[in-house]
Amino acid sequence: MEEKELEILRHGCSHVLAKAVNKIFADAKNTIGPAIEDGFYYDFDINESITPEHFNKIEKEMKHIIAQNQDFKKIVVSKTEAKKMFKDNVYKQELIDAVPDNEEVSIYYLGDDWYDLCRGPHVSNTKELRNFAFKINRVSGAYWHGDEKNKMLQRVYVYGFENVEALNNHILKIEDALKRDHNKLGRELELFTTVDVIGQGLPILLPKGAKVVQLLQRFVEDEEEKRGWLLTKTPFMAKSDLYKISGHWDHYKDGMFVLGDEAKDKEVFALRPMTCPFQYQAYLNRSRSYKDLPLRYDETSTLFRNESSGEMHGLIRVRQFTISEGHLMCTPEQLENEFKNCLELAIFMLKTLGLYEDSSYRFSQWDPNNKDKYIGTEEQWNEAQDVMKNILDDLNVPYNIGIGEAAFYGPKLDIQIKNVWGKEDTLITIQIDQMLAEKFGMEYTDKDGAKKHPYIIHRTSIGCYERTLAYLIEKYAGAFPLWLAPVQIKILNINDSILDYAISIQEKLKSLGFRVEIDDRNEKIGKKIREAQLQKTPYMLVLGENEKANNCICVRSRSQGDLGSQKLDDFIKEIIEERDSKKIF
Amino acid sequence: MEEKELEILRHGCSHVLAKAVNKIFADAKNTIGPAIEDGFYYDFDINESITPEHFNKIEKEMKHIIAQNQDFKKIVVSKTEAKKMFKDNVYKQELIDAVPDNEEVSIYYLGDDWYDLCRGPHVSNTKELRNFAFKINRVSGAYWHGDEKNKMLQRVYVYGFENVEALNNHILKIEDALKRDHNKLGRELELFTTVDVIGQGLPILLPKGAKVVQLLQRFVEDEEEKRGWLLTKTPFMAKSDLYKISGHWDHYKDGMFVLGDEAKDKEVFALRPMTCPFQYQAYLNRSRSYKDLPLRYDETSTLFRNESSGEMHGLIRVRQFTISEGHLMCTPEQLENEFKNCLELAIFMLKTLGLYEDSSYRFSQWDPNNKDKYIGTEEQWNEAQDVMKNILDDLNVPYNIGIGEAAFYGPKLDIQIKNVWGKEDTLITIQIDQMLAEKFGMEYTDKDGAKKHPYIIHRTSIGCYERTLAYLIEKYAGAFPLWLAPVQIKILNINDSILDYAISIQEKLKSLGFRVEIDDRNEKIGKKIREAQLQKTPYMLVLGENEKANNCICVRSRSQGDLGSQKLDDFIKEIIEERDSKKIF
Repeated sequence: MEEKELEILRHGCSHVLAKAVNKIFADAKNTIGPAIEDGFYYDFDINESITPEHFNKIEKEMKHIIAQNQDFKKIVVSKTEAKKMFKDNVYKQELIDAVPDNEEVSIYYLGDDWYDLCRGPHVSNTKELRNFAFKINRVSGAYWHGDEKNKMLQRVYVYGFENVEALNNHILKIEDALKRDHNKLGRELELFTTVDVIGQGLPILLPKGAKVVQLLQRFVEDEEEKRGWLLTKTPFMAKSDLYKISGHWDHYKDGMFVLGDEAKDKEVFALRPMTCPFQYQAYLNRSRSYKDLPLRYDETSTLFRNESSGEMHGLIRVRQFTISEGHLMCTPEQLENEFKNCLELAIFMLKTLGLYEDSSYRFSQWDPNNKDKYIGTEEQWNEAQDVMKNILDDLNVPYNIGIGEAAFYGPKLDIQIKNVWGKEDTLITIQIDQMLAEKFGMEYTDKDGAKKHPYIIHRTSIGCYERTLAYLIEKYAGAFPLWLAPVQIKILNINDSILDYAISIQEKLKSLGFRVEIDDRNEKIGKKIREAQLQKTPYMLVLGENEKANNCICVRSRSQGDLGSQKLDDFIKEIIEERDSKKIF
Repeated sequence: MEEKELEILRHGCSHVLAKAVNKIFADAKNTIGPAIEDGFYYDFDINESITPEHFNKIEKEMKHIIAQNQDFKKIVVSKTEAKKMFKDNVYKQELIDAVPDNEEVSIYYLGDDWYDLCRGPHVSNTKELRNFAFKINRVSGAYWHGDEKNKMLQRVYVYGFENVEALNNHILKIEDALKRDHNKLGRELELFTTVDVIGQGLPILLPKGAKVVQLLQRFVEDEEEKRGWLLTKTPFMAKSDLYKISGHWDHYKDGMFVLGDEAKDKEVFALRPMTCPFQYQAYLNRSRSYKDLPLRYDETSTLFRNESSGEMHGLIRVRQFTISEGHLMCTPEQLENEFKNCLELAIFMLKTLGLYEDSSYRFSQWDPNNKDKYIGTEEQWNEAQDVMKNILDDLNVPYNIGIGEAAFYGPKLDIQIKNVWGKEDTLITIQIDQMLAEKFGMEYTDKDGAKKHPYIIHRTSIGCYERTLAYLIEKYAGAFPLWLAPVQIKILNINDSILDYAISIQEKLKSLGFRVEIDDRNEKIGKKIREAQLQKTPYMLVLGENEKANNCICVRSRSQGDLGSQKLDDFIKEIIEERDSKKIF
């Protein structure tokens, strides 16, 4: 079905909803009811609250109206006439007032006994809604005109699709997204939390979440070291002087947390939104020759961005985050090969984590119609983007173009990923920068003895750890691969007499580096299993008299259920292989 | 020799210095010349700069004066007379003006031809300085009265001791301290740097320093995990609301970096100076029972303190630092044992790093004469300090008492350590806190069903990484134990034909986790060895035709020199043992 056609059905059904609600709530004042992405909504002013208990009754009345094959009939009246027809409804009065005086007002009847102000178009009879499938989703508060100074109305959201199958598919998708939503599941699994006294966008990683991030961080640092990157640890803030050189002060100040007041204080500091100017100071620590290049600095770097309240979301958009950031200084001849290495590293990370297939590439360019957002000239931007385009084409990177998405100092290759609700964000970015080396006076002595500015690649290899954790929670619905699971094995003893055996197994597994907990509560084994399963623990070892007597273990996998009795050594061999290969299942 | 007696000799010799300088620099105006800890200084106003080239001439003249057995003779004159005697010296005029009008002024002659304004006491003749040994140390600028609005004078510092042996000992000590001073050596070895555009107290850890800190951090996190600590990762800033509950806003605000202005902004944030209120939010994430206790949270935590410029020093006193901080919630019965565990962990860390013997304990108490610096009542402080005293006595901890050194919320056991210049700072701290749990509403349900506030132990296990790095540099004069050395092995090939063999050895060692570099420059082997030695590289492998032909290596140790030819496997066995046992030599 065409999107436009579906929109007409959805909007028609919103009239059916309003008529049904008017029947059930006599004082209800109607306002507006547009089609939306997955159905429609309608805002009502009613004294009584609509609750989920009403949904069934409303849906029944809607079906009743549709079954009666009622006509949608358009009439056109003068503004004066229209205002009479809606004399008890201040909202409609206001909408009619907004119509230019020389225009007429269109009104749609639904049946003979009910009408609503509406521009249309509409289906001509509810017959056409026979196959249309709908379900009331929820009610939430919404201010009239979205303005918090106005009255709070009740907005009834309804899923609406062309047929039952499409509706059911959508509901399944929503249920799945809800189960995976990191902002819900991550809190339930005690991976993270937020509290009002600390503030929005400043999540607390609880021990389980902190463990996953620690594992990721070590993995990234070690992999980068293998690939020739040198770790630095630079300060999280600097005097405004530094940002004035880099251009952040002129082009990014609104996004920064500033400490002090330039008008009053001798020194003004700001928390860093990016690592670049800090790592450049490491480069500047001594004179460099072409023999020192490429020089690759990486850092497990914490950054701060003063996001506005409306933009923040769980672990995905936050005010403080830690990122595997790096800057690579090289000669023009080395640029393409080093860019390729950075991209390979990013892909290696995404593949290891199982996120590669969900990602896409965006070539983020400047907006030539908004030049004052950027440093550098048009010529410099064209050159930088040409260099990047050639490299991307050489490497066969399949990208979309994002106009106006560049950094203020250069173009970017962004690796994009969507959350369970379909919202896209950048996870990883690789940028080419020809401008900042000059601003900071970064040079190297070339073979010919001449001083030259290096090319700089800004890059992340796994992006921000908080955001990565969010996507991992959503990808695996909290059931992390074994190597990343905060608790890898839960030992469930049948009763206290097995506890010493349980402890001996735990010690053995711990000595091999596994994270193992014993659930030694006096609870039924079924309950212990259910709870370990809810915690998405990869393996549960059920230990009773039999296991103790035979010196074996009974293994349950969270994904495959009961795996039966095994020798501990056999189990160990398998899980070491699963862990060390970072297996994704 | 008595300190007082030595002071008189030092001050006497400062007159000798002034007389000598007056002879050499005709325009020199004398000011003051007191004795100090290791000698004396004298401030002069001279047009010409005194440079090290003058030192010999001045010392010679001083020795000449002393050899002449000149008398120190006191005379007493009126203020008017005194002002006449120093008519060309504005500084002395000012000093004489400050003498009350009814008092006389004392002046000391040295010989018949030179005198200075002086209160004395003095030795009676330069004969008494015959054994006194001195050496001009340096000249530096010093404002008259220490006020930068006044003229900058030239301050001549002189070491002065009772005899040659004492002087030489002191000079050796200074030379050794200079060689170890982390603020000098740490920069030379490219462990860290600071730059003006970032700001004071915000060091940049260069790759070698960052590597040492990464190794320490992983070691600490792993050891803490083994001992039952759970890692958290909490935000580095919070709204003022949080600090108002904890008391930081009232008792610590001057030491904090504040973002925003309470008079203007809806939300004011501050960078955290301590981790406590943040980890408490993790505790508060769910209800707790006595079965959950002790609950031990650790964190590799970054803190920010707004130190004043004068206080900052290298890596020891900085504005941003990373610390192994932790908070432990427990029942009263668990307190002593948990305190003991925290202390054992700290001692284990100090011993592993080789710093234990240089440390001492300070029991830091509140200052009952300055109550508004603290939260809580006198009764609460007495109780908290009694609890702590009993525990320290039970554990036989030999401590000094530091009045007024407590945290604002409770007493501390501080583990103190001195830098090469004798300045003492706190490296590790363990605190008992009975106050903050109540403020934050932290509770647990006890066996009897009653809600109770837990005791909290605040503790570090290795202190701040930057400071620890500083003490390690000074302790080992940059020659870190093998496991911590940024570069562990340097391969020095005799010429290019050996490079493939060098690379094969490097690959082998790298695969075993060693940090190995090849110095493949076309330089003499002696030069390569000297430079690796200056870098304090633990092992150098010298590879030539012989080694390649016989498939062996020639090993040099930075401490023992040439160790001769060895099979690679034998060498590997030894260094793995040395690294994994974290051997200190």
